[in-house]
Amino acid sequence: MTIQSFTPPRRILMGPGPSDISPQVLQALSRPTIGHLDPLFIQMMDEVKQLLKYAFQTQNDFTIAISAPGSAGMEACFVNLIEPGDKVIVCRNGVFGERMRENVVRVGGIAVVIDDNWGDAVSLDKVEQALIEHPDTKILAFVHAETSTGAQSDAEALGKLAKVHGALTIVDAVTSLAGIPLKVDEWQLDAVYSGSQKCLSCVPGLSPVTFSPLAIEKIHARRTPVQSWFLDQSLVLDYWSGDGKRSYHHTAPVNSLYALHESLIMLQNEGLENAWQRHKEMHNKLKLGLDKLGFEFVVNADVRLPQLNAIFIPQGIDEAKIRSHLLNYYNLEIGAGLGTLAGKAWRIGIMGYGARNENVALCLRALEEAITS
Amino acid sequence: MTIQSFTPPRRILMGPGPSDISPQVLQALSRPTIGHLDPLFIQMMDEVKQLLKYAFQTQNDFTIAISAPGSAGMEACFVNLIEPGDKVIVCRNGVFGERMRENVVRVGGIAVVIDDNWGDAVSLDKVEQALIEHPDTKILAFVHAETSTGAQSDAEALGKLAKVHGALTIVDAVTSLAGIPLKVDEWQLDAVYSGSQKCLSCVPGLSPVTFSPLAIEKIHARRTPVQSWFLDQSLVLDYWSGDGKRSYHHTAPVNSLYALHESLIMLQNEGLENAWQRHKEMHNKLKLGLDKLGFEFVVNADVRLPQLNAIFIPQGIDEAKIRSHLLNYYNLEIGAGLGTLAGKAWRIGIMGYGARNENVALCLRALEEAITS
Repeated sequence: MTIQSFTPPRRILMGPGPSDISPQVLQALSRPTIGHLDPLFIQMMDEVKQLLKYAFQTQNDFTIAISAPGSAGMEACFVNLIEPGDKVIVCRNGVFGERMRENVVRVGGIAVVIDDNWGDAVSLDKVEQALIEHPDTKILAFVHAETSTGAQSDAEALGKLAKVHGALTIVDAVTSLAGIPLKVDEWQLDAVYSGSQKCLSCVPGLSPVTFSPLAIEKIHARRTPVQSWFLDQSLVLDYWSGDGKRSYHHTAPVNSLYALHESLIMLQNEGLENAWQRHKEMHNKLKLGLDKLGFEFVVNADVRLPQLNAIFIPQGIDEAKIRSHLLNYYNLEIGAGLGTLAGKAWRIGIMGYGARNENVALCLRALEEAITS
Repeated sequence: MTIQSFTPPRRILMGPGPSDISPQVLQALSRPTIGHLDPLFIQMMDEVKQLLKYAFQTQNDFTIAISAPGSAGMEACFVNLIEPGDKVIVCRNGVFGERMRENVVRVGGIAVVIDDNWGDAVSLDKVEQALIEHPDTKILAFVHAETSTGAQSDAEALGKLAKVHGALTIVDAVTSLAGIPLKVDEWQLDAVYSGSQKCLSCVPGLSPVTFSPLAIEKIHARRTPVQSWFLDQSLVLDYWSGDGKRSYHHTAPVNSLYALHESLIMLQNEGLENAWQRHKEMHNKLKLGLDKLGFEFVVNADVRLPQLNAIFIPQGIDEAKIRSHLLNYYNLEIGAGLGTLAGKAWRIGIMGYGARNENVALCLRALEEAITS
């Protein structure tokens, strides 16, 4: 049987990611591939570093994009910062906190898990208590914006708590970067990872990360080698070094980096504060419409993420059928519930280029038609 | 300072990879992104699996593309197939054999290294001797096509040797897949990984892999968890499962997979045997021209790869200056030497879409002009 070329439809992506992508970014993606050691490409990688520093609000030298998805960025933080026997407090209030725990265990660390309800923010009190009870804690790990629930935790307060108790932080900023305020230096965060396919609105497959000088110090002081060769950041750092001493590690995903570069330029041109504001405004519009339709949010207003809106599915509705109808009839993708929210909630993403008036309007109208027809 | 969009020149890529990419593949790359759980995308992933089975010449169910570069594909094979304490014979005749050894050590395996000279094939006699001396060997690991030297090893004979001695094989087919014969099932190879950016002429960033039923059996029989969460193939397998029970693992690099799908369709339409033949013919043309220019090959003719031609740099030539001139004046990229061949050899790749008459002709003429001017 002969397989034919694949021609995807033009979907409107309003799930938990990948988000809608600007034609400008897709065009950059398809520019001619050049060698990954080409001097022009190395210059472009330097620009990606600069632009990522702006997005993360950091001066950290070690600010790069891992050549793999966000879950590899997560793993890069854990395998580099944790040595066997290190105690790690892991905050779990959704799918990605649990994934952090998995990472701690696989790297030989000792995980102390702080549980909060799905949909709640991480409890500062519980974390402080745990830091007091476990003074030998090396790392505090938490999710800034839980993609599985839409809850936002107070990364600033958590970062400062960790510092008071002499611990470093590993922060999941996959869904937060460029969608809500994230200030790596001001908040004293140490290892922060994100994804290309959320509020940056780039193609999926890259994971921006930044490591503070304290994180780098801990890596240099390791007594054991990093268990992953591919994610060993001391090797990766030499690859991203812009001082002419660049050494071969792997082959960078050249075209995906073109796309990331372009999406970061769009962010630079809009301005970070304006981007945060736009997400907020679009969220307010969406919320107003969803309220009118009678939907209830999973997350309380005070800790609700603007870019990821989890809403309960009304009684008596076949949720998979509705999602399928939205996809097939309107080319509109919204997200299913994940983990304990599977079958109970939908997740509507208004991320990056997806946070536009036309997307919000379409989503509200299509949802209304779908649930009332 | 405001950073501008990046507009790369159109290079002719004749280094060790990334290789020249067809406009057809770049066009597929930039098609509209759809969700990674979209039913249409899942269908496309199934087609990618089918097409990869053809490329690898295998019926292995577990034949997928890892969402990261070839070095992550390498690591995926080692972390899944090896448990701490497992003895692994590693054949080292270039950079990538040494990287395999690194992987064995980081995963807690016991590496028995068989060294051959850079530029030589792996010695069957030495491997047989080692298998006899170490009857408790679990894995034989070797590189089919050494990208650092251009030497080809006898994967068929090595695969059969391993089977005779009850060992599984891990095979680096990064540069061999689609460039020279590779018959995973016929040669009884167990875990084989490749890269998207060599003879498949797709964008860099993906690593096709295939695991035999014996390899899967070893994974299922593990007493210890796989140390990497991202590369744990028992989880990845559920993500690539096409039977409707697809479970979330990470977000696939959607657009890169469009490109891989298209490059595999080009291979399907040309036919694998025709692609092998084309690489051979282009190599013969290149060789004839290089002979006339007085170049000498690093690798003996009997084990020379057609797609990767390492040639010694003539005395008295500033090799970096010549490469730079080729890049700037002709937009032609050839590769520098790697490892012990750094400064001593160039590597000329004629891979995939790059294996065309016009590329070979340009390369020969430009090289002639550059070294005689």
